[in-house]
Amino acid sequence: MTTNYPDDSYSLHTDFYQINMMKVYWDDGIAEKKAVFEAYFRSMPFNAGFAVFAGLERVITYIQNLKFTESDIAYLRETTNYPEEFLTYLSEFKFKGKIRSMREGEIVFNNEPLFQVEAGLAECQLIETAVLNALNYQTLIATKASRIRYVAGPNASVMEFGTRRAQEFDAALWGTRSAYIGGFDSTSNVRAGKLFDIPVSGTHAHAMIQAYKDEYVAFTKYATSHKDCVFLVDTYDTLHSGIPNAIKVANEFGDKINFVGIRIDSGDLSFLSKKAREMLDDAGYPNAKIVASNDLDENMIMHLMAQNACIDVWGVGTKLITAYDQPSLGGVYKMVAIEDENGQYMDTIKLSSNSSKVTTPGRKNVFRIIDNQSKRSEGDYITLADESMEGIETLTMFHPVHSYIQKDVSNFTAQELLQDIFIDGELVYQLPTVHEIKEFAKENKKVLWDEYRRISNPEEYPVDLSDKCWENRNENIKSVRDHVKETTSVHFDRPSL
Amino acid sequence: MTTNYPDDSYSLHTDFYQINMMKVYWDDGIAEKKAVFEAYFRSMPFNAGFAVFAGLERVITYIQNLKFTESDIAYLRETTNYPEEFLTYLSEFKFKGKIRSMREGEIVFNNEPLFQVEAGLAECQLIETAVLNALNYQTLIATKASRIRYVAGPNASVMEFGTRRAQEFDAALWGTRSAYIGGFDSTSNVRAGKLFDIPVSGTHAHAMIQAYKDEYVAFTKYATSHKDCVFLVDTYDTLHSGIPNAIKVANEFGDKINFVGIRIDSGDLSFLSKKAREMLDDAGYPNAKIVASNDLDENMIMHLMAQNACIDVWGVGTKLITAYDQPSLGGVYKMVAIEDENGQYMDTIKLSSNSSKVTTPGRKNVFRIIDNQSKRSEGDYITLADESMEGIETLTMFHPVHSYIQKDVSNFTAQELLQDIFIDGELVYQLPTVHEIKEFAKENKKVLWDEYRRISNPEEYPVDLSDKCWENRNENIKSVRDHVKETTSVHFDRPSL
Repeated sequence: MTTNYPDDSYSLHTDFYQINMMKVYWDDGIAEKKAVFEAYFRSMPFNAGFAVFAGLERVITYIQNLKFTESDIAYLRETTNYPEEFLTYLSEFKFKGKIRSMREGEIVFNNEPLFQVEAGLAECQLIETAVLNALNYQTLIATKASRIRYVAGPNASVMEFGTRRAQEFDAALWGTRSAYIGGFDSTSNVRAGKLFDIPVSGTHAHAMIQAYKDEYVAFTKYATSHKDCVFLVDTYDTLHSGIPNAIKVANEFGDKINFVGIRIDSGDLSFLSKKAREMLDDAGYPNAKIVASNDLDENMIMHLMAQNACIDVWGVGTKLITAYDQPSLGGVYKMVAIEDENGQYMDTIKLSSNSSKVTTPGRKNVFRIIDNQSKRSEGDYITLADESMEGIETLTMFHPVHSYIQKDVSNFTAQELLQDIFIDGELVYQLPTVHEIKEFAKENKKVLWDEYRRISNPEEYPVDLSDKCWENRNENIKSVRDHVKETTSVHFDRPSL
Repeated sequence: MTTNYPDDSYSLHTDFYQINMMKVYWDDGIAEKKAVFEAYFRSMPFNAGFAVFAGLERVITYIQNLKFTESDIAYLRETTNYPEEFLTYLSEFKFKGKIRSMREGEIVFNNEPLFQVEAGLAECQLIETAVLNALNYQTLIATKASRIRYVAGPNASVMEFGTRRAQEFDAALWGTRSAYIGGFDSTSNVRAGKLFDIPVSGTHAHAMIQAYKDEYVAFTKYATSHKDCVFLVDTYDTLHSGIPNAIKVANEFGDKINFVGIRIDSGDLSFLSKKAREMLDDAGYPNAKIVASNDLDENMIMHLMAQNACIDVWGVGTKLITAYDQPSLGGVYKMVAIEDENGQYMDTIKLSSNSSKVTTPGRKNVFRIIDNQSKRSEGDYITLADESMEGIETLTMFHPVHSYIQKDVSNFTAQELLQDIFIDGELVYQLPTVHEIKEFAKENKKVLWDEYRRISNPEEYPVDLSDKCWENRNENIKSVRDHVKETTSVHFDRPSL
């Protein structure tokens, strides 16, 4: 937050090659030439059945404040050979294009456009890095949080505790907002509470017991200072010291405190929580909650629940805030169309010897196909932007790779998922509160059959291409290959010569 | 960076329980009571033989600017029951204590104090979360970068490319600074270049080829705009289109450009780089560099080098900036001593049924024991703060768990590793430049036998306790157990009743 430059901005929070490409376009007079880029990810994080989109608010703020300041320009002047005219162009730069995006809290899948930019080439290029940086991380964490919430069930509380293990300050802040969107109830991070109006939670650590050395004394000090008490009981011995002392203090303070419960942060959480439950019940505290923490994730929580661990509140840190088992989403941002000489969009494609890296050309729309009877989704359906869903009675949905896998869908509603965010550089989207986003995510999940929500080996959700979109892709592949073949002895790089 | 609060600060970038504990201490009149906390990590990240300490500059800035602003206080007033007197105390709060720390770029190991705070209880508590947040992540990345640099060897260049995959903005920024400290040569992140004076690199992406559709045309446009050219050659077909076009443009532009080389971002990097080398050499460009990128880490680089891949420059993204194979360091911060009634330090310990979680009590020093003949390190030696190394001729170093593993060391120099950073809240440490830190890290690694630097299954570096420190730990364990036993039927939680 504090830098040596009072006017420091995020305009340089980009890869150097983006600015070098802007210069090429500017030199060539095509910096303002319209192009369309789409961001998407290629495979589901955590092998999940669905993902929860997040990061848009951060991106909107970034776009709105995107301006090269004096110190940004001075830095480029010192370290590059850019001519003054180009630096002047940069200093006057602002985003003037159109952005459509999934809403935060939307349920999303791999290989569908999540974020679509229609703007001058230079604008499209500059923002790529920061857009992916925010969307990749926040979507990853919202998705992970959603998995944990699903396993914990609707009656348990789940709290985000990970700041100290997050990958630097921003990850702690935006990660906990994403966790809240994904279904978490609260965070330990007070600044996130302040900035995003997320409930904060937390009472005391082992250090407080150490400070008083005597656990009973420490609990009484806490109870003297705070009405709501959750006592951490594992500093010395959970069952023989911690819980007896917690009960003793609860008995002594009576109505003077609200004995919310106890927290266990080490040892076998299944064994200790069941014994703790018995002890609290026997002592007349059946409503005292048992909070558990210590390297939890959705798998560990499921294993503990399978053993009937008596845990009411799950505190999740490291494994959530870093998405420990897959710490990167791998979202990409690819050009799908560019203006030709006549101002018409010409579709573009990127080939690759890796089939999953071949892009799907054309400016696109994404529709969620909801069955009118079951109110469940039949899948997502990607069309070219100029296709209409009006008047389609029966939709044939086929797998985009294994196209023999298909089904006919009728009596459905097609919901358009991409929303207008910026038009002509102006924000046209009303930002929802984080509470509305969280509720939106919760409602969205209801259109999914449970089989897509299973955390291990879920059914694959259909993300299909329209006929036109599929044919257009094949034509583009052929057209680029033909063009390349004309000029070279190309054979598309399989490892033989 | 932009928030709704112009006076927003990092004082609330902490866990809520820290502030709740501050209130307990404040209510009890012991907020200013002196305590000592030490930060350390329990096991080596990536099973590495050593780690590279980083994050101190970030922490120093945080400490210097630590102040509850009006909006911070207003938030606490609205959302808690804190009395006004406590809020006033917070609004006047500043860090007034002492901090000693490893220097950035220092070689460090598990279970040795890296960062030591000696301050009032409330101060110690408040800063824990942010300190760990920064040190954990930055040390992790500096360590990962150091492993990659080691494998790539001194003649290759290694470039950090990971911003889009980083866990939010700060991770990209501070992660690339950590990568530079660990031995990387440059970054793609322009803002990191500006703020930290790190060299930036990058020329163009696939999008530029798509913008012109024709690869040859795109390369000529780049060459017209920029003197230094690295052409990305894998958009259509590396060997049959990309490299021939790169060579053609290099031939045509001659001295007008500096044909630095080519970049390959997909396909089999071993196969393609060897063929590329032949083609560039045959075309008269033996000095043209081959840059490779695509999900690289130290292991993949080692495998490619084992196959004699002709790669001069490694571009590393996701796997470094997220520390993909272990995205969290797991550093902790524990109280080791607290003032007693007479103003003397009384050591404190935290027990646990998990043996690795039992702390080592007492304010400590860390010495690196350098053999005067070989100039290599014999290990690190942890003493209580009041022990002197003066006049010790022969040092018996023994394993802190398996104490029968030991050796006698003579003719050595004991280097004290923890440096004074803050005294009475004032910064007394001269911050080095990032270039000095990088050089310091490089020099430091020379005291390590190669066997500690191997990236797989390295020899375990000795981190030993002095006799006094070891005995003090055993005495503290006994004393706390005796105290707990007096009041309870304690048996220290092994799963039986």
